[in-house]
Amino acid sequence: MLKKLLLGGLGAALVLTAGILLGHFGIQRGSTIPGWIQDVTQDVDEDLIQRFISEVDNVEIQENLRELTKVPHMATTAGDERTVQYMLKRWQDPDTGLDRAWREEYLVYLSFPDPKTPNKVTVVNPSDTVLYTAREKEKEYGPDQKDPDVVQPYAAYAPAGHPKGKLVYANQGKPSDYLHLNQTLDLNGTIAITRYGGEGRAQKAINAAPYGVIGVLVYTDPRDINDGRMSDTNETYPHSWYMPPSGVERGSFNTQYGDLLTPYLAAKDDTYRISMAKITGIPPIPTQPIGFEDAYALICELGGRPAPSEWQGAFNCTYNLGGPGFKPTSTFKESQVQLDIYNRGEIKNSSNVMGVIRGSVEPDRYVIYGNHRDSWVHGAVDPSSGTSVMLEVTRVLGRMVKEGKWRPRRSVIFGSWGAEEFGLIGSAEYTEEYYSKLSERSVAYINVDISVFANATLRASGSPSAQSVILKASKQVKTPGSESTSVYDNWIRYFNRTSPTYGFYGALHLLVTWPTYFTQTKTSARIYPAYHTAYDTFDYSSKFIDPGFTSHQTVARTAGNVLMRLADSLLLPFNCSDYAESLEAYLAKALELYTEGLAVHNISIGGYRQRQKCISCCEDVPLCSSQPLKVRGINDQLMLLDRAFLDPTAFPDQYGFRHVIWASSKASEPTFPGLADAYERAALSGLDEDWEEAHRQLSLLSQAILGAAHTLEEVI
Amino acid sequence: MLKKLLLGGLGAALVLTAGILLGHFGIQRGSTIPGWIQDVTQDVDEDLIQRFISEVDNVEIQENLRELTKVPHMATTAGDERTVQYMLKRWQDPDTGLDRAWREEYLVYLSFPDPKTPNKVTVVNPSDTVLYTAREKEKEYGPDQKDPDVVQPYAAYAPAGHPKGKLVYANQGKPSDYLHLNQTLDLNGTIAITRYGGEGRAQKAINAAPYGVIGVLVYTDPRDINDGRMSDTNETYPHSWYMPPSGVERGSFNTQYGDLLTPYLAAKDDTYRISMAKITGIPPIPTQPIGFEDAYALICELGGRPAPSEWQGAFNCTYNLGGPGFKPTSTFKESQVQLDIYNRGEIKNSSNVMGVIRGSVEPDRYVIYGNHRDSWVHGAVDPSSGTSVMLEVTRVLGRMVKEGKWRPRRSVIFGSWGAEEFGLIGSAEYTEEYYSKLSERSVAYINVDISVFANATLRASGSPSAQSVILKASKQVKTPGSESTSVYDNWIRYFNRTSPTYGFYGALHLLVTWPTYFTQTKTSARIYPAYHTAYDTFDYSSKFIDPGFTSHQTVARTAGNVLMRLADSLLLPFNCSDYAESLEAYLAKALELYTEGLAVHNISIGGYRQRQKCISCCEDVPLCSSQPLKVRGINDQLMLLDRAFLDPTAFPDQYGFRHVIWASSKASEPTFPGLADAYERAALSGLDEDWEEAHRQLSLLSQAILGAAHTLEEVI
Repeated sequence: MLKKLLLGGLGAALVLTAGILLGHFGIQRGSTIPGWIQDVTQDVDEDLIQRFISEVDNVEIQENLRELTKVPHMATTAGDERTVQYMLKRWQDPDTGLDRAWREEYLVYLSFPDPKTPNKVTVVNPSDTVLYTAREKEKEYGPDQKDPDVVQPYAAYAPAGHPKGKLVYANQGKPSDYLHLNQTLDLNGTIAITRYGGEGRAQKAINAAPYGVIGVLVYTDPRDINDGRMSDTNETYPHSWYMPPSGVERGSFNTQYGDLLTPYLAAKDDTYRISMAKITGIPPIPTQPIGFEDAYALICELGGRPAPSEWQGAFNCTYNLGGPGFKPTSTFKESQVQLDIYNRGEIKNSSNVMGVIRGSVEPDRYVIYGNHRDSWVHGAVDPSSGTSVMLEVTRVLGRMVKEGKWRPRRSVIFGSWGAEEFGLIGSAEYTEEYYSKLSERSVAYINVDISVFANATLRASGSPSAQSVILKASKQVKTPGSESTSVYDNWIRYFNRTSPTYGFYGALHLLVTWPTYFTQTKTSARIYPAYHTAYDTFDYSSKFIDPGFTSHQTVARTAGNVLMRLADSLLLPFNCSDYAESLEAYLAKALELYTEGLAVHNISIGGYRQRQKCISCCEDVPLCSSQPLKVRGINDQLMLLDRAFLDPTAFPDQYGFRHVIWASSKASEPTFPGLADAYERAALSGLDEDWEEAHRQLSLLSQAILGAAHTLEEVI
Repeated sequence: MLKKLLLGGLGAALVLTAGILLGHFGIQRGSTIPGWIQDVTQDVDEDLIQRFISEVDNVEIQENLRELTKVPHMATTAGDERTVQYMLKRWQDPDTGLDRAWREEYLVYLSFPDPKTPNKVTVVNPSDTVLYTAREKEKEYGPDQKDPDVVQPYAAYAPAGHPKGKLVYANQGKPSDYLHLNQTLDLNGTIAITRYGGEGRAQKAINAAPYGVIGVLVYTDPRDINDGRMSDTNETYPHSWYMPPSGVERGSFNTQYGDLLTPYLAAKDDTYRISMAKITGIPPIPTQPIGFEDAYALICELGGRPAPSEWQGAFNCTYNLGGPGFKPTSTFKESQVQLDIYNRGEIKNSSNVMGVIRGSVEPDRYVIYGNHRDSWVHGAVDPSSGTSVMLEVTRVLGRMVKEGKWRPRRSVIFGSWGAEEFGLIGSAEYTEEYYSKLSERSVAYINVDISVFANATLRASGSPSAQSVILKASKQVKTPGSESTSVYDNWIRYFNRTSPTYGFYGALHLLVTWPTYFTQTKTSARIYPAYHTAYDTFDYSSKFIDPGFTSHQTVARTAGNVLMRLADSLLLPFNCSDYAESLEAYLAKALELYTEGLAVHNISIGGYRQRQKCISCCEDVPLCSSQPLKVRGINDQLMLLDRAFLDPTAFPDQYGFRHVIWASSKASEPTFPGLADAYERAALSGLDEDWEEAHRQLSLLSQAILGAAHTLEEVI
């Protein structure tokens, strides 16, 4: 048992030299000492891991998915309630269920189109004749699309309204896109059509409004999702995995997360709610998503100058900026585009389904595994590929528990979150309600949302210290269709290693992993093409994403393996040195980018290099091995390492962000987010107060990193 | 072993029915099982507590005090450094010292008068003749006052300046006092003389400035501190404990705490500092404290109408409001009061002295015991009565450790804080620097500042859950001069019980206790009369506060007993039901005061009553008794209960306050501080947004209380 680490302040010397080597623990089974002593010194049982891996069944996952995707199950609908009941039934099963399962409800603010008055997009000429009407529904290729509960494509949280104006093409709706348009066009009173990608959904409208734009359309360009394919006679679904011309990506058009009316508070019946007028981060103007079939009809008729080459998509026409409006040669000449949006907010009851397996030795330490349950339509990939995997994990683990073969050292909590599609609402409300308990006891959070959307290799992201356990698990699981190649072997074929600088800050502030397979080995699609459309169905998944469900099986084996290791390891399988490596990379980048600019304002970043600290936290092997409270102490250090970076004063303007290393940032380079944003703002404005904020960010970063070092060093 | 508790939301049912009964733990010494099992199940050793009590020596404390008070030791002066060296010598003593002791330094912003140009207060007639000059120094009665290092009385952080204006008497400088004056007087350009009490030091000037007041004097009225006594020929020190006519209470005139230039950041060399112009909570106008001898000369000459009867003090004249200015019959008629203030800010190096005794079983759990070291002058009572007690506690405990007789289960950290008098700076910077470590591991913080200032009975305040251990300790210690009466017996003679509704939120966010004796059984003094004057000396303490130092000895015995119980108890001696009782009392008060007013605005406080939760967290005695990790789990619940009430979003405008139960509040009634303040503001303004804030406060209170309940209930 050896753990030695060197952790400097913000210095280049910020290196944790050696990882944690899991040792074997001293006390042997079968002696005459009390039974609990054997329990408290028990480490991961590799035989049980192997049993778990062998029992995970691809056909079970397939049948889970079939059941979960029978009907659309958008948050708080009857279809959603059907999945609630199914989860409860499975988790309460006497042979394969969990110790306990129940539902928890929140009253949350959602946004829906009006089923009686669908949203409309039309082209209207000066005498108010409608020349063109965009589809209200996606084209039906099978019974799934015919289901009356398929929600019309819409932009959740975009306001109702009836703007009419000349059309312009605004590329991805980024600030720079509108800035470019504004150089030659008066955007006042225009409708902007934008393509998905490059900018957040809500942001496309938020960026537009200051220029006087009164409505926004958004579509998915075939270049960005279909590798250019556009024809549904032989190219797109049901002939392939590509999005049909009428397919529309739905989505939540907001930038915050959690219930929008109850920031930082769990949305209970009597909870204080802000007024709807105070909601921020949603489109200030009506917005509607449409299919590329309709976008084609509009964009290829646009007049004005040609858009820059990077703005051009896959349509066989030149993308013009708009006159504003259509070409004089078009049948739409002089016409305007009209949006008739009838979205409305509703406060609805959303459920999380929770389940637990109680820990034997440390029940007050939680390993949490979750995924959302709600979809936009049938959601076979998003989220039900993850839910069907979760149900298979719980079936196998549940049986081992019911048979008395296994009980985890730590408690395992499963969460099937509601209303995620509207902005991570279920998990955020859960976290708000149980904040103190969770922040004291959670060891890790594993999130498996979309579990398979392609078939290339595993994708995982999370806190750097979790890297090693994921690598370990991936070495024990075979890649689909191979008896010898491991997931790990296949992985390193695609990546040299996981990115050292990609962290994740989820609603739970904890470790998040998202194992995923790419289905097509060669695609430039930014995600699978049926994403958030009415084509994300069991039929789609079983034919094009994972026929035979062996990739799903592989994700279940890997994620479950990680889960068991987190739950059972005597010493938590977290590697501080991986964390340090990430910090070091961030620091190197910050030094490279900011040293000179800060020096001009008498702010020294180099000074932080001088602080060094030699940390060693358990070199005495026999002590560690035989003393459960010492082991617990070390585990607490490991568990709480990531929490040491939380600082509620760090980002007063950014809702929900408190982690000074993994926060949202506009920075293009992988480095400390608060420092990067503050530096860029100061460099742009030149204001003293902005340079002061950059200095403050540097100081709180230094304090957080040293604070983390203090939690790792010898406890007293 | 039984702990059952019922905890409702904000309901009347918020009752934790039964306290924690400390049980005896199963495994006996002397068996053949590993030694560490005996260690981890070891509870408090009552024999060692008795040894501690018997070894605490009054003469040792007297000699500690003599040494500590030889010279003035204001923060960062040579005298302060002398005490740093003394603490280090004592804590590093090979026979009676701690395991380790060291100093930690911070660069902090302090405020001093200019020794070369003393502050002056004069009465100046229209032709600029000085008619009266207030004393620059306190009168010398012995060698202590003659020490050249006695700092001139001043108001730390009050700005330099030379205001001259007509004098008015503003009572205690409360908002209502200026409001009253303003009804009949134009305060523009006036100097206000105020008496200590009723309002914070800085606030007297902050409240004054909006009325155009340009300078503030503050003095201690003999009514408030001297039971009316005024003459130094036979009534005041050196004839008694009363304040001599020239005595002046110094103090820090600020409302925040911690280094004013580095909010939320430890004040290191390269830490970001706000500009001095951005400091808030300090006097905006020059301010100076004076003795009542000078105040008498000014107030009794004031013209204008008589002040209200509650404003009258002990002087043998009518306190008039001022014309503004003096009576026409006075020799000061037409004259103005001139302040010449030369205070200046300085960034100085302040030291904490730290020491530790390493815990044997749970070294990563900290019991912290501290007191500040810096005084205004000699500080025999404040703070050296506490420091001399702390040194005696460490001497006795240190010897037991060095002799191998004792090692605490948990680690004990001792802190001798610097620059407390300027606003809790040393402890605040320490907390900021080690925030994550301390918030994860601290079990309790015991603060013993002024340990004896009178001789009536013990005074202790702290988190309600700490009540029981203080009561327990007080029953084992005899009151001074008695062989049979315990501190506890004497205590209940004075109070039925400690206030259930008095909590404390200190710089460490943790439990604070402050055992104190009243010296005079019959006095209306708000504190001991030499407080912050040049008369707070060894001579004063040994003659008038505690001749023989037996009260000091009693505090040392009690505080050390509490410390040992916190450090050694197998189960932490915290009683949840005492916490619930406090919450219940707060709730009852809130229901009484606010139910109707909130209902008018459709905010229901009664709804919270319906939530109830049955909580039981360790009914299985044998399990608890034999399983160290179960015990640790319960202790974590107890330790973290108080932390569950921390919410960084609760009081965005109040620096440093995050605890929703024990926060600063303007409310006169003992109830939830955030709700009370929000309610009062809303009731006054009637604004919708203020009622919304009241509702928000209610919701976050409910969430915090339920969050605490969640941490107490069965862990999974």
